[in-house]
Amino acid sequence: MSAGGSRASGEDDLIARYFRPLATHEGAFGLIDDAAVLSASSDETVVTVDAIVEGVHFLPNDPPDTIARKALRVNLSDLAAKGAMPAGFVLTLALREARDEWLRPFAQALGEDAAQFKCPLLGGDTVSTPGPLTISITAFGLVEPGKMVRRTGARAGDRIAVTGTIGDAVLGLDILQGGKAATALAADADSRDQLIARYRIPQPRNVLAQAVRNHASAAMDISDGLAGDLSKLCAASSVSAIVEAASVPLSAAARHVLTSGAAGIETLLAGGDDYELLCAVPENRWADFCAASRQAGVAVTAIGGIIAGTEPPAFIDQAGQSLVLKRLSYSHF
Amino acid sequence: MSAGGSRASGEDDLIARYFRPLATHEGAFGLIDDAAVLSASSDETVVTVDAIVEGVHFLPNDPPDTIARKALRVNLSDLAAKGAMPAGFVLTLALREARDEWLRPFAQALGEDAAQFKCPLLGGDTVSTPGPLTISITAFGLVEPGKMVRRTGARAGDRIAVTGTIGDAVLGLDILQGGKAATALAADADSRDQLIARYRIPQPRNVLAQAVRNHASAAMDISDGLAGDLSKLCAASSVSAIVEAASVPLSAAARHVLTSGAAGIETLLAGGDDYELLCAVPENRWADFCAASRQAGVAVTAIGGIIAGTEPPAFIDQAGQSLVLKRLSYSHF
Repeated sequence: MSAGGSRASGEDDLIARYFRPLATHEGAFGLIDDAAVLSASSDETVVTVDAIVEGVHFLPNDPPDTIARKALRVNLSDLAAKGAMPAGFVLTLALREARDEWLRPFAQALGEDAAQFKCPLLGGDTVSTPGPLTISITAFGLVEPGKMVRRTGARAGDRIAVTGTIGDAVLGLDILQGGKAATALAADADSRDQLIARYRIPQPRNVLAQAVRNHASAAMDISDGLAGDLSKLCAASSVSAIVEAASVPLSAAARHVLTSGAAGIETLLAGGDDYELLCAVPENRWADFCAASRQAGVAVTAIGGIIAGTEPPAFIDQAGQSLVLKRLSYSHF
Repeated sequence: MSAGGSRASGEDDLIARYFRPLATHEGAFGLIDDAAVLSASSDETVVTVDAIVEGVHFLPNDPPDTIARKALRVNLSDLAAKGAMPAGFVLTLALREARDEWLRPFAQALGEDAAQFKCPLLGGDTVSTPGPLTISITAFGLVEPGKMVRRTGARAGDRIAVTGTIGDAVLGLDILQGGKAATALAADADSRDQLIARYRIPQPRNVLAQAVRNHASAAMDISDGLAGDLSKLCAASSVSAIVEAASVPLSAAARHVLTSGAAGIETLLAGGDDYELLCAVPENRWADFCAASRQAGVAVTAIGGIIAGTEPPAFIDQAGQSLVLKRLSYSHF
């Protein structure tokens, strides 16, 4: 991403007007160069990339500010899960048209989140597309060498913890699409708004990064659904797991939808876009992990345990029966 | 980009089958984690990002192997211009559908280029899109601290040099679209093929990175057209320039098209997709720069000089008149 001077093109103008103010990192060179620089460091750089596509990861009529926040936050969530401190990001923005009334709130919200999470814009590329709005962000984080929390470290006996509440975002999407959750919450606008906000604006748990780094044996963020993502973590660690479905933390709004019969627990367990953290924590670290989480102001809930084996994780209902999940998580293909 | 195990989704399968073999960097963790790691280093990390969109940067019927090479090489070209050694890249691939017959040659060519340019795949994100195929790559390179070659260092008196030949790619595109260049070269299939190859498969000048780092005062790659890109470099350096249009190096094929009248010099000077390097080189570095370029096997040509001033660069024809360029370069908006 670079913006020229005296004979700036429309593209350069756009970058200079909307994105240069976000390029507060000295290695961004004010977006006037072809590349940015990350300083030499005694830390390792964690690199993560996530893209969001209109009509796939967000809805065509979602407001530009929530689209901006979602694009950055899904990446911040990965950094949190890896125990890394945010250091900056680069942005690819593929736009059908450059409209001020869209770009202004988009860039402003992106800048606010970049400041809040201390993750400045380093550079990017703005291109035209005849297709859906597509935003790809590559984010960088720092960890001491060897300290990135992997998916591979879970061991039998570890507790399984999740942050926040699970399944809200999939219900928010259902409401936006006029599904059964909208009917179940027809009389409760606050709950509908809460669930919609959970779909549109993830709350990445970066304040928990240090606790994850210090205490978790394995971690990932829950982006494609708890059931499928736990399955991936277990596969990467060559272990299995048992989860008590009733212990999975639900918001009051989600519990209401569940009780009303408008959605089953399977929907919540396999629904995407939670952007909560999924951690395996050794028993002898559990108390410290909980204390650090309390201090960070993030609710964590134990939902089960890691066991030996290669079977996919089992989700057990209150009758002790294993739930059959038709679909573990979202897959693009 | 991560691929799970026992219950892999289609997306995970796709990543495991096609992209895991490319993830040869130890910090890629075989693509089974959410993030990659760049080691702590005494070098700075140069970060560049470029996206290519079907129907904008490449044609819908371009072969998958050339699309892969173009996606990586436009980024390698930026690293070369900045004097950086390639270190790795992350890939965002937005696909309408996951077809083996497309993905196999795409991934194979991407892997071949990654090996050739010593720039391994570190991670990525594969998403579905209802729109055009879109590929965004963020590439990383290494330079000693403070040694990244900027756009801002050109000074009055520097020579202006370009690598290779200019304007081939825009003629290649014209041929693919059945334009006048196709007619001018109707009897010369070899020349047509050469120009088309220049459009589809850029030749990034990474072997010249060290010479650029050691001798250039400013540099960038020519992606949007020589005239516009030189204008950007001059603006960033607060200087102007004079270029003798007749000294701009042209291929035999481009010269034939020019002589036939099927395209004017303006088209070649403002056409995009050259991916040659544009360098400002101080006079006392010129001989060493040329010697290093010869040793690297890359043709470099002096096309003019940097002068004081804030006017846009002037392109002078053989009569000494300033060419009027209606359009300096490609802009997306």
